[in-house]
Amino acid sequence: MSIAVIYGGTRKNSNSEILTEHAIQGIKTEKIFLRDYNIEAIMDMRHTEQGFQDRQDDYNAIIDRILPHNILLFSTPIYWYSMSGTMKNFIDRWSQSLRDPKYPDFKEKMAAKKAFVLAVGGDDPAIKGLPLIQQFQYIFDFMKMNFDGYILGRGNKPGDILLDKEALFSAAQMNHILKG
Amino acid sequence: MSIAVIYGGTRKNSNSEILTEHAIQGIKTEKIFLRDYNIEAIMDMRHTEQGFQDRQDDYNAIIDRILPHNILLFSTPIYWYSMSGTMKNFIDRWSQSLRDPKYPDFKEKMAAKKAFVLAVGGDDPAIKGLPLIQQFQYIFDFMKMNFDGYILGRGNKPGDILLDKEALFSAAQMNHILKG
Amino acid sequence: MSIAVIYGGTRKNSNSEILTEHAIQGIKTEKIFLRDYNIEAIMDMRHTEQGFQDRQDDYNAIIDRILPHNILLFSTPIYWYSMSGTMKNFIDRWSQSLRDPKYPDFKEKMAAKKAFVLAVGGDDPAIKGLPLIQQFQYIFDFMKMNFDGYILGRGNKPGDILLDKEALFSAAQMNHILKG
Amino acid sequence: MSIAVIYGGTRKNSNSEILTEHAIQGIKTEKIFLRDYNIEAIMDMRHTEQGFQDRQDDYNAIIDRILPHNILLFSTPIYWYSMSGTMKNFIDRWSQSLRDPKYPDFKEKMAAKKAFVLAVGGDDPAIKGLPLIQQFQYIFDFMKMNFDGYILGRGNKPGDILLDKEALFSAAQMNHILKG
Repeated sequence: MSIAVIYGGTRKNSNSEILTEHAIQGIKTEKIFLRDYNIEAIMDMRHTEQGFQDRQDDYNAIIDRILPHNILLFSTPIYWYSMSGTMKNFIDRWSQSLRDPKYPDFKEKMAAKKAFVLAVGGDDPAIKGLPLIQQFQYIFDFMKMNFDGYILGRGNKPGDILLDKEALFSAAQMNHILKG
Repeated sequence: MSIAVIYGGTRKNSNSEILTEHAIQGIKTEKIFLRDYNIEAIMDMRHTEQGFQDRQDDYNAIIDRILPHNILLFSTPIYWYSMSGTMKNFIDRWSQSLRDPKYPDFKEKMAAKKAFVLAVGGDDPAIKGLPLIQQFQYIFDFMKMNFDGYILGRGNKPGDILLDKEALFSAAQMNHILKG
Repeated sequence: MSIAVIYGGTRKNSNSEILTEHAIQGIKTEKIFLRDYNIEAIMDMRHTEQGFQDRQDDYNAIIDRILPHNILLFSTPIYWYSMSGTMKNFIDRWSQSLRDPKYPDFKEKMAAKKAFVLAVGGDDPAIKGLPLIQQFQYIFDFMKMNFDGYILGRGNKPGDILLDKEALFSAAQMNHILKG
Repeated sequence: MSIAVIYGGTRKNSNSEILTEHAIQGIKTEKIFLRDYNIEAIMDMRHTEQGFQDRQDDYNAIIDRILPHNILLFSTPIYWYSMSGTMKNFIDRWSQSLRDPKYPDFKEKMAAKKAFVLAVGGDDPAIKGLPLIQQFQYIFDFMKMNFDGYILGRGNKPGDILLDKEALFSAAQMNHILKG
């Protein structure tokens, strides 16, 4: 198994990153910090004659990095009860890849992957993070990816997540699964 | 009553825009097309000594335009089962405004507003749009804004929304309410 | 098309019944008022040697009445943010029918049906009724029934539903579809 | 702290009961197995002259047993993506207690309680159990009870829950909390 981790957070050593470290400990992964890239918002050109245009940013380079892996781990702080806007812009662009002749097998390759989600928030994440999980379920369903697990951790101040024993235990369990 | 409409779509005359036109017909509104602005993603600096830094973009100019109004109408296509990344980045930045000394009464001013949501999607929006509505509910709850109504319309190809009679009827009802 | 309406309410002329009347106006339907029947709670005997036992109540008689129809309309007041306990007990018993040698084709016959839901509640049904809709979605998915539409109406005191113009309009639209 | 456990399952030693045992190990609790009682469905008489009528069943006896405790633990198998019909009928009857002159302080007493939910299901409970949790959230919000935690365990065949290490760990954590 080969794993790419897609980080949506904007803060180094954020709680979601720390939690993710527990999940991937001892495993070689391809780490993609979306904040280090320029990812333009999608421009919906589905219904124009010319179709989607290359947005001249780093998006395709990221796709090239994740496509070879068979497990994708989405790691994001919970911003306003969903993934970060940075991660959302990244996923929005999948609509373009699905129609991009340069990626004729984008959907098939994605459909073969398993997905995990790690999200950490400060405002009652076990309840108020549930729509985010349902949203990811629909996203993965659409792409025919398997949604193999998620963790909703609690954290606000740096390091808070280390106090969330259930999240850490779940990360350790996820680590076993990822080590296969 | 004074209304600002915040558009999250990237396509002109999109289905969500058409639906919104029905809701605001005959009403003077402040229209803000987020796609016309440069809105940077939030950089979470809550826990640093210097705090949030001015991101040198158009975000504050938009805030200045919406704050005077007492009704906010969020109009967005449903991208991947939530609001567009563009709109998400805009809302993510509220975390910065909440701590910005230039906007000492941001939360109070927002709390006095009523919110409406209009969202249009092509993949079973009446079901798969529900997590989006729940996210907005939590967002408005946090800001203590009243969530006064929403419409989940169906549309994929340009103009499809005109076939969704229930959405159009709901928009006409919303129009009555907005006209007060 | 042939329609059975399954009523979960306990009050005659309840708001959910009135709304349902609008949806089935002018259509011959099989009306089943669950309150008129004795439906025992399920006793989970899946894992016992003897299996499920006949509960000597009216449940099978109701199943016999709904199976011949190809559209099922579930009409329920929203009690505590879900369907009534009466309707829930009825649906819980499907687990028994799925294993009942007297109904060898229960699942196939149900899978061929289309389902609609009409639910009326007094406490912000457009938001707080959403988990109910999601539960029905999972129920129909499991049975491979098509979930063809739902209405969440607002009503508390008798007759309130007549003030919910959007619900009435949706019921009129549903009426067109049911007349098909 | 004093704890009442309300069991909604119909099978002895069910997975939800086993999980609950882990959560209350070493703690004296008041155990109420709803299946041992006769609880009639609610008859909505709010809007009649005479109001709700005594249903001549065991419901009030159960209320008398739970009211003295300050923690309520709701333990239910997931039947059809929600609580059992038996438990739903019990909760539906709260609408009667809220208007029952014999229980003038029902709401205040309930509002002072903390609530926990333990639910076990066989069909992807971590995802498809989420509407049940959201429903409980609305129920507890209405009663102004604190929703202090929940566990969604996985189990189908008897004893399966013992394989769900995360659920068992969460039950151990809940045990610490309950021991206070």
